[in-house]
Amino acid sequence: MKSFIIIGHKAVTAPFSLNDLPGAAGRMDILCRCINAALFLSHDLRRDVRVYLVLKGGSPEKLILFEGSRLRYLSPDERSAASLIKKALEKNAQEFWTESTPGVSIRKGDLADLLAELKTPYLNTGTGKKIIYLREDGMDIRGKKFEEPVFVLGDHEGLTEDEEKIIMEHENEIVSVGPLSLHADHCIVLLHNEMDRAEKRI
Amino acid sequence: MKSFIIIGHKAVTAPFSLNDLPGAAGRMDILCRCINAALFLSHDLRRDVRVYLVLKGGSPEKLILFEGSRLRYLSPDERSAASLIKKALEKNAQEFWTESTPGVSIRKGDLADLLAELKTPYLNTGTGKKIIYLREDGMDIRGKKFEEPVFVLGDHEGLTEDEEKIIMEHENEIVSVGPLSLHADHCIVLLHNEMDRAEKRI
Repeated sequence: MKSFIIIGHKAVTAPFSLNDLPGAAGRMDILCRCINAALFLSHDLRRDVRVYLVLKGGSPEKLILFEGSRLRYLSPDERSAASLIKKALEKNAQEFWTESTPGVSIRKGDLADLLAELKTPYLNTGTGKKIIYLREDGMDIRGKKFEEPVFVLGDHEGLTEDEEKIIMEHENEIVSVGPLSLHADHCIVLLHNEMDRAEKRI
Repeated sequence: MKSFIIIGHKAVTAPFSLNDLPGAAGRMDILCRCINAALFLSHDLRRDVRVYLVLKGGSPEKLILFEGSRLRYLSPDERSAASLIKKALEKNAQEFWTESTPGVSIRKGDLADLLAELKTPYLNTGTGKKIIYLREDGMDIRGKKFEEPVFVLGDHEGLTEDEEKIIMEHENEIVSVGPLSLHADHCIVLLHNEMDRAEKRI
């Protein structure tokens, strides 16, 4: 299983208009592109992927989960992912996961809650996962092996100091995908390619 | 200069609704994501990139050019790229390029016209460019050097036999980005990363 956590610092926690994802919805377009990059193959879905969105643009913060193995109704376009996020936000979010559409669930919670949960056997995610995050001064991903990785990526604002501190409370590793600073969804494509190559041994 | 040609087999050649890019606009969402992947860095644009779209979903076929060095008003979301394409399609396209917004131009023409044009000194693109296209049986891109490359990518339908034949009339090379079949925009991210690494020698 490969998990991606994407932090949306401005992403709203209430239903929003599909016609203004970057503005009124708080750069929800970024999260939608990350869902695409994490889950889509050509004419197929990556079934071994979970994408967690951390929506920080409202109170309380909310978490949304997209599970590749169970996902339905997702098309590659931003609006399609946004529509499933919106449907999740229409649910009355609890302290536990509630499924809104097949493969999409929502709960109240923040990054610390999520990382703590991923350390428990809940959702069969196992224990002791290493949290991997991207920074330009990190170790190059080329040739690296990732086992059951949990990647944390920020939106256009990157990760805040507070978020880095929360990550530091877990076993972690800092990696870099290349010489230039890239959008989160582009980083996800590069991470997948490295893991695809390792799995196929090319 | 790095050029990307994206073929939209169903992409409409008349103005379209921004609210249904995958359906009524003929998978225009794919072309929009390719524009994003080809042109965006984190908080910057790739100035040394040109993206050519081949719109085949109407008659006559039309070509649209996005030039990184001159581009304005483009945001990373699909709807933003779609809006600039729509504005271009509102122009009365001629046999020569007409600029619709800064850095975006349109003309009548098809893939053969475009490849012929790229062989001439027009647009300072030089002569004798090698056309590079992606296929799963191509040579791995890792470690390859690309000089003034012209990449050709298909949308969800890949390249047709006729399109491959047109490319075969030019000096060409077939490459592969990895072991799995990916969306065109994801391939562009991987091509850029390889070129970024070569330029920075990492």
